[in-house]
Amino acid sequence: MQGLMQDWPLLVHKILDHAAIQHGGREVVSRSVEGPIHRTDYSELRHRSLRVAQALDRFGIVGGDRVATLAWNTWRHLEIWYGINGVGAIYHTINPRLFPEQIAYIVNHAADRILFTDLTFLPLVEALAGHLKTLELVVVMTDAEHMPDSKLANAVSYEEWIAGCDGNFVWKDVDENAASGMCYTSGTTGNPKGVVYSHRSNILHAMMAAATDMMGLSFNDTVLPVVPMFHANCWSLAFAAPMNGARLVMPGAKMDGASIWELLDSEKVTLSAAVPTVWMMLLQHMEETGKKLPHLTRVVIGGAACPRVIIDKFENDYDVQVIHAWGMTELSPLGTVCTIKPEYGGLRGEALLDIKETQGHPPFGVEIKITNDAGKSLPWDGKTFGRLKVRGPAIARAYYRDDSDILDDEGYMDTGDVATIDQNGYMRITDRSKDVIKSGGEWISSIDLENIAVGHPHVAEAAVIGIAHPKWDERPLLIVVPKKGETPEAESILAHLEGKVAKWWMPDAVVFVEEIPHTATGKIQKMALREKFSDYVLPTADQD
Amino acid sequence: MQGLMQDWPLLVHKILDHAAIQHGGREVVSRSVEGPIHRTDYSELRHRSLRVAQALDRFGIVGGDRVATLAWNTWRHLEIWYGINGVGAIYHTINPRLFPEQIAYIVNHAADRILFTDLTFLPLVEALAGHLKTLELVVVMTDAEHMPDSKLANAVSYEEWIAGCDGNFVWKDVDENAASGMCYTSGTTGNPKGVVYSHRSNILHAMMAAATDMMGLSFNDTVLPVVPMFHANCWSLAFAAPMNGARLVMPGAKMDGASIWELLDSEKVTLSAAVPTVWMMLLQHMEETGKKLPHLTRVVIGGAACPRVIIDKFENDYDVQVIHAWGMTELSPLGTVCTIKPEYGGLRGEALLDIKETQGHPPFGVEIKITNDAGKSLPWDGKTFGRLKVRGPAIARAYYRDDSDILDDEGYMDTGDVATIDQNGYMRITDRSKDVIKSGGEWISSIDLENIAVGHPHVAEAAVIGIAHPKWDERPLLIVVPKKGETPEAESILAHLEGKVAKWWMPDAVVFVEEIPHTATGKIQKMALREKFSDYVLPTADQD
Repeated sequence: MQGLMQDWPLLVHKILDHAAIQHGGREVVSRSVEGPIHRTDYSELRHRSLRVAQALDRFGIVGGDRVATLAWNTWRHLEIWYGINGVGAIYHTINPRLFPEQIAYIVNHAADRILFTDLTFLPLVEALAGHLKTLELVVVMTDAEHMPDSKLANAVSYEEWIAGCDGNFVWKDVDENAASGMCYTSGTTGNPKGVVYSHRSNILHAMMAAATDMMGLSFNDTVLPVVPMFHANCWSLAFAAPMNGARLVMPGAKMDGASIWELLDSEKVTLSAAVPTVWMMLLQHMEETGKKLPHLTRVVIGGAACPRVIIDKFENDYDVQVIHAWGMTELSPLGTVCTIKPEYGGLRGEALLDIKETQGHPPFGVEIKITNDAGKSLPWDGKTFGRLKVRGPAIARAYYRDDSDILDDEGYMDTGDVATIDQNGYMRITDRSKDVIKSGGEWISSIDLENIAVGHPHVAEAAVIGIAHPKWDERPLLIVVPKKGETPEAESILAHLEGKVAKWWMPDAVVFVEEIPHTATGKIQKMALREKFSDYVLPTADQD
Repeated sequence: MQGLMQDWPLLVHKILDHAAIQHGGREVVSRSVEGPIHRTDYSELRHRSLRVAQALDRFGIVGGDRVATLAWNTWRHLEIWYGINGVGAIYHTINPRLFPEQIAYIVNHAADRILFTDLTFLPLVEALAGHLKTLELVVVMTDAEHMPDSKLANAVSYEEWIAGCDGNFVWKDVDENAASGMCYTSGTTGNPKGVVYSHRSNILHAMMAAATDMMGLSFNDTVLPVVPMFHANCWSLAFAAPMNGARLVMPGAKMDGASIWELLDSEKVTLSAAVPTVWMMLLQHMEETGKKLPHLTRVVIGGAACPRVIIDKFENDYDVQVIHAWGMTELSPLGTVCTIKPEYGGLRGEALLDIKETQGHPPFGVEIKITNDAGKSLPWDGKTFGRLKVRGPAIARAYYRDDSDILDDEGYMDTGDVATIDQNGYMRITDRSKDVIKSGGEWISSIDLENIAVGHPHVAEAAVIGIAHPKWDERPLLIVVPKKGETPEAESILAHLEGKVAKWWMPDAVVFVEEIPHTATGKIQKMALREKFSDYVLPTADQD
């Protein structure tokens, strides 16, 4: 027996309809790529999105077509996303920080028909043009006045392109399970892989992310997403903010401490979201200048584990609540959020920071578990490491044009992370599963060792990898880049670790290098390190 | 092109799984029907729900079967709902305030196979037993000790019935569009009509209702739903509270001012929800005793328009935020909620109360419009009345075993209410569409006139109906029940109205009666009044 409820599919364009009808006058403020601050509102933004949809429709874009964007966070990028979805097509965000050959790969792999690009990236597009086989049009996100001479034969300025469209257009409805967006994961090995969001997953995820104990989004908030729209679906803020009528402030191309502070202050931002390095720059700027942020109430921090010092400074020096979060492109991206349940409501000081350093707990709609290599669930005791696996309506079941089966027997996706979960459901990432060191059947967290090692006054950067060992399978090797002008001794670094980790976690050796290789997005390339040290023999290999 | 997200249907049992896993120790406190306060938590509640599902399964209940409940808000009622849904069956809540013949009608119409009843209602069930053709079993929600001798051949105590079930049971998955619950509307005419919720609508609605600017439900909340589970799907609190890990306090059978105050106080309740009459009783109790409620932060008020005095007292005397809401059984039930958007953020005093008296604005997932009789949309100016129509994923498209088409060309359901909507999306109910008085092509609100008339010191109750008029189609007749011992004059009452309404709204006559007829749930039976006054001739009929 079926329910007798209305057939109202979960479609992305309904978010913008709701924002325009219920919160039409709410501002969307942007630092434009051209320079000046630009102001619009949800009502006007919807009208311009309809013009974009109309222009795409006239061009011949149809349901299921991929349309790429290579752009900063601005009102134009926002109206382009909704315009693309509103004609039934799929927005494909490209991370400009990828290597050029990776960008060419994903444009060709997705078979993008149109590319919207900011002025910033036009030279990159021009350089790659010959390799982008499926592109029929490049729309440069500016007006005629700012449109440069381009080498491209098929380039047009955005404002001119939509000038002929009056917005008299009706959104095209699609099935709610139809694709809405694509985002390729950068990964550390192999080609990028395409995650494909559906309209349904984008809507459900926005509702989950906005919940009171997640981001707690309100129409009384002014939200500044420093996290780019090209990074992991913009942490849902391009959907969750208008869905809840929050005022939006878009930072454009400038993400240094001074520029972000200026927008946070002048626009009275209440909630912002970014990776730890952005917050580091902001805190440094505020400490140097003595500036404050009286309107800011909370910051969402994700993309990498948040150093304790950032949490401490925001909460204790600036009275800003830190919402430490964990997610992945494959999760739309929100997995867990660290807000304080009543079980930890009484904690203060260092004990509270211990909890805030975890990545928190999932909303309704994200199920998590940790398992051993054989797939057996492990206890939630806050100590046992396991492979972190996730299940939910906004989590990938497969990659685009890729036959790999990425779900286990119960339908969970392996995140590739290793984590602990405590008795109250708080998850802490301890490592990537390919980087964890397997010693005598137990797991050692390379990340924990690295984090402690960089606390040594003469260490600039550290990486820990597993080296084959005849008795223990693997033992940790600590690879260190000394600070400029310093020549620390191995003994001094090991002494710094002692007492901070279990004895059997202590690295078997320390080696010094001039630099550690990184991916385009700044992650340590442990694969390259493992190759480099593939012949390395631990001094303990013939002992024990 | 489809999205590549996991297939994770929106099923009600997942709410309880999430609550038990992420908020397992959070309490569910109940005033038991037997008397004492009872304490459990989401972890235990889930286990007992599994036992209920197992018992239903053993009995032979299968997907799509209807199982009725006639019960107060307690932990048992909650675990029964989840147990019923967990075996794929449909919970059917019966409002004990219906006339006995209506109860018999809906049990037979739904073809309920099992009825769970509280001790309170056992005599009612015994009296009706011969008329309940489809019932195979009556489960009395108590233990062996409290089980009375029953005339029923097929009655068993709840605790004995589930005693043999260990809870080793796996929820039965169904399609997310499968029916989850049924609730019959009482209506003022004809037989009750069955609204059928789906698993999907219950989940989406709970997410909508819990949003920050709606009820703003948090795991830091302790929620007391005075609104019964048999009233309009419990305003979603049986789903939205566990979904968000909120602590629950269930009031059982006692809903007088003193009993509710006692629970609000002793359990440190932060959010409660009820109809205006309950709050009237509570405020009266607090005024008489001088008691306070320091933990209570907000009250949701719905089911009927909330008198201004209640809003004023809660907000200004007790520092409790009033969340005035409007809904209907057909809407799962939430339609609009009156929280304050930035546009009204600067209002204070009477101007703020003016806004708080409206029923507020809809969440994402409820679309509203007002139209004239021809279906044409009317302006949102806060003045123009129109038929209120609604669209969304948790709104009825039809009634159970009823062929009537209740949607318009655009898929909106006519609510039967007449309302205004202002430029910021705030909706105010002005009348029922069958009660509105149509005078010279314009509409007059019977409710507005009644509300002002009862402000006269000698008026106990008032009703306004339209009487046929040769020139104006209809003109208002004001029907008044004087206060005991008072004999007000018509002139005095009309003088009281003057200046408070437009001149052309003034009733053409006032008549005095000893009583006004009501439905089982306390609504004025205007249909009966119209019949009674069908031959009434207005003194103005041959003038003008």
